Amino acid sequence: MMAYPLTLDRLLERARRWFPTTGIVARQPDGSVRRSDYAAWHQRATALAGGLLQAGLRPGDRVATLLWNQSEHVDAYFGVPLAGGVVHPLNVRLHPAQLAAIVRHAGDRFALVDASLLDLWREIGVPVERVIVCPDAYEALLATSSPTPLPTLEENAAAAMAYTSGTTGEPKGVVYTHRALVLHALATALPDAMNLRAADCVLPLVPMFHANAWGIPYTAAMIGCKLVLPGAAFDAESALQLLAQEQVTFSAGVPVIWDRILDALEQHPGRWRLHPELRVNLGGAPAPEALFHRFDRQGIRVHMGWGMTEMSPVGAINPNFGPGAQGGHGARLRQGRLLPLIEGRAGDSGELEVRGPWVADQYWGGAAPEAWTADGWLRTGDIVAFDAQGLMTIVDRAHDLIRSGGEWISSVALENALLGLPEIQEAAVIAVPDPKWQERPLALIVLRPGAAADPAAWRRSLEQSFAPWQCPDRFLPVAVLPRTPTGKIDKRALRAQFA
Amino acid sequence: MMAYPLTLDRLLERARRWFPTTGIVARQPDGSVRRSDYAAWHQRATALAGGLLQAGLRPGDRVATLLWNQSEHVDAYFGVPLAGGVVHPLNVRLHPAQLAAIVRHAGDRFALVDASLLDLWREIGVPVERVIVCPDAYEALLATSSPTPLPTLEENAAAAMAYTSGTTGEPKGVVYTHRALVLHALATALPDAMNLRAADCVLPLVPMFHANAWGIPYTAAMIGCKLVLPGAAFDAESALQLLAQEQVTFSAGVPVIWDRILDALEQHPGRWRLHPELRVNLGGAPAPEALFHRFDRQGIRVHMGWGMTEMSPVGAINPNFGPGAQGGHGARLRQGRLLPLIEGRAGDSGELEVRGPWVADQYWGGAAPEAWTADGWLRTGDIVAFDAQGLMTIVDRAHDLIRSGGEWISSVALENALLGLPEIQEAAVIAVPDPKWQERPLALIVLRPGAAADPAAWRRSLEQSFAPWQCPDRFLPVAVLPRTPTGKIDKRALRAQFA
Repeated sequence: MMAYPLTLDRLLERARRWFPTTGIVARQPDGSVRRSDYAAWHQRATALAGGLLQAGLRPGDRVATLLWNQSEHVDAYFGVPLAGGVVHPLNVRLHPAQLAAIVRHAGDRFALVDASLLDLWREIGVPVERVIVCPDAYEALLATSSPTPLPTLEENAAAAMAYTSGTTGEPKGVVYTHRALVLHALATALPDAMNLRAADCVLPLVPMFHANAWGIPYTAAMIGCKLVLPGAAFDAESALQLLAQEQVTFSAGVPVIWDRILDALEQHPGRWRLHPELRVNLGGAPAPEALFHRFDRQGIRVHMGWGMTEMSPVGAINPNFGPGAQGGHGARLRQGRLLPLIEGRAGDSGELEVRGPWVADQYWGGAAPEAWTADGWLRTGDIVAFDAQGLMTIVDRAHDLIRSGGEWISSVALENALLGLPEIQEAAVIAVPDPKWQERPLALIVLRPGAAADPAAWRRSLEQSFAPWQCPDRFLPVAVLPRTPTGKIDKRALRAQFA
Repeated sequence: MMAYPLTLDRLLERARRWFPTTGIVARQPDGSVRRSDYAAWHQRATALAGGLLQAGLRPGDRVATLLWNQSEHVDAYFGVPLAGGVVHPLNVRLHPAQLAAIVRHAGDRFALVDASLLDLWREIGVPVERVIVCPDAYEALLATSSPTPLPTLEENAAAAMAYTSGTTGEPKGVVYTHRALVLHALATALPDAMNLRAADCVLPLVPMFHANAWGIPYTAAMIGCKLVLPGAAFDAESALQLLAQEQVTFSAGVPVIWDRILDALEQHPGRWRLHPELRVNLGGAPAPEALFHRFDRQGIRVHMGWGMTEMSPVGAINPNFGPGAQGGHGARLRQGRLLPLIEGRAGDSGELEVRGPWVADQYWGGAAPEAWTADGWLRTGDIVAFDAQGLMTIVDRAHDLIRSGGEWISSVALENALLGLPEIQEAAVIAVPDPKWQERPLALIVLRPGAAADPAAWRRSLEQSFAPWQCPDRFLPVAVLPRTPTGKIDKRALRAQFA
């Protein structure tokens, strides 16, 4: 068989060759909508690659991006790897001091920065060899880029990079190879995964500066489907406007984004005419059953996925769309089935360990080697259980279990149950020290506007599904829950506060 | 990213781990139906691998199979590669002398032979080190196989092998690597290709001794869907019985098989209750529009594919199922869109040249190097055209065009049109020498039973779609058309006969 490398240029070339007029629609940071297509995208990505090479880019050089989900970011997702470089999106939600540490640690040589983020870039304050500001300097670079022979790419060469903190520790860099991204695109497009066709219209409601945008720009190019980008606006109204206007058939995002979109749909019935076949892939956090019922009422098919920045990022997807799930009640709440070529096993105390061709084998620079087992599997930090259908449920984070009297209590299960109660908007269950039982669960509750706290009723409700000793001793209403820069509830801060 | 090889053992392990009770149903050569599942299959394939290793199999050794689409053949598809060997199915439709040349050329060391094919094996007469006859000696081998550590597999190692003759030349061997077969499984399962889910039930009506059974046994294991095998019986009644009994949702085969199945369905309305979602992937030859309409009337969704033994074998699939095809009338008649990672370009006189990770770069032993261009693309022998949707149409075989007065005439287009006429069962259009025009088309016609020849009407019908000079000058009824051992009409023989 031919020695044909699995490299990103092949995906972009396929889009140019067979889908030249298929659209790419990007809302730009200034609010304007830029309409392009794969032929033009190929031309721009190639011009960016040429411009970077003429600027002196060497194989493996990191090119930082400080951009929204905008046109230039799509260019860079392919253009930097086509030049042999490593595209390194910076998470604009991090603190400038954290970003400075990341830029320094990654050794970024160039940077593409949107004009709207120049102030943040200056706050970061780490010098790089060349900063190309969008749109003006960026367009000038593309316009003056002369046709340049692009390098022959190796499939195991680095193509992209992302930093992750999880809920603990310092940011750590994950480097994606061409091979990993191509295989990830193939596996996530499968019918039992994202189920993507050329006839689809895809809107990733996940930032391109976070977790590789779930690989969706690469998958879209491979499949040849229309791609819509929300720019800097992730609020419900802006998202719904694009979803309706472009007749999106597939979207993806974390549950909290969709919770807000469902709020807007419920408050304004009939205002947005969504595509009747719209389906949504949720990931990044477990979702309560109540959220699924709200999707059902809107006629939007929804299913779960699971991943990590260390997994390019998708590791599992639940093939069950909509209310008629195989495997009975609750099957579609599960995180999903591990994708082909991703292997999982249970490690200590049920922690999932994984391996596969799009799973990181180390962090950039060798940080935190304890994230891998001695035989090379990645420790995910998720405690999981599998049902008879092979569907995985996250029972808890490895460091987020509550150990009470020698028994484990799942904070996630309690939180999901609490989120199903009408008065409760957000809930966090944490371990607090207890002289008798070592640890006990404490529930911190954000009430919905106008709702009143009723701990006795909450406890009665929980006791329908949990043993009395598993239920929190106290329910403490709070105005707001602290969150990490990536939007997760900051359990470490809460544990410290209530210790 | 982890150095995780793309090897077949990972696909079988996935089936065992997540789909242990999913069924494999095989009609055995004696007519009995054997019901098994992925857990049992994994156990048997592993036992076969152990038995072969204990018999002395070395890495890369070829193991011939002379088997139908039966249970043991599925074992061998995985068991031989798991032991580090190369599974080499022999095409029982070839002449014993041709098979003898193939066994000798491949250097097969062991052979798995079904008892029903022992006479053929004796006629082949080439000694191999060990012949294991199914079922008795085969079951004894599995029963006495002790747990053996299986070798660590390399993704570029050979896993399977098939011989092809095309319509010209001596049989030539194609060797499939683990990597090629895994990537082929991923790409063919995509929504715009075979669109396979774990919930599907798949019946390949393609022989496992021909063109790698379109990769379907490997794809089924990767996806985790139910697999049904027809044994030695490819007749319409036997196929329909299995299709109905097992409620098959996906089947595949060459048009002539499905022509017969549609005959049976039309002759016995209501006799078989097929799954309402049954869909069929046609390949191996172009299909006339009339065949699509017959599928439509039965409520069976149908689409085209295209491939070659040299391409593992699928290169393109038409994503349009059913009558409501995108791209307008005729779009679904086309062979399809090249799969992701398969690149195509037009070579001399429009011949399609391809490359990709599951395309052969040579024949076993270096035969017929002229099948590749100087820069390493495979010459397919197919003259193709692409429409605006990227859908490919085979215009003709490179050696099968008719050159009349300096213009090319497509024999395939004429044949397809003739096959749409009610009186015509089979048609072959060949070039015959002509003193004035160099070559002229001659149509050889096999009439349907009871039908009468009406060349004047046929010509009038053709002239609705073809220029007068493109139509055959003569229509010659014949009782039968000669066929090559792989079932294609033998145009070379016809040209020689009518020269």
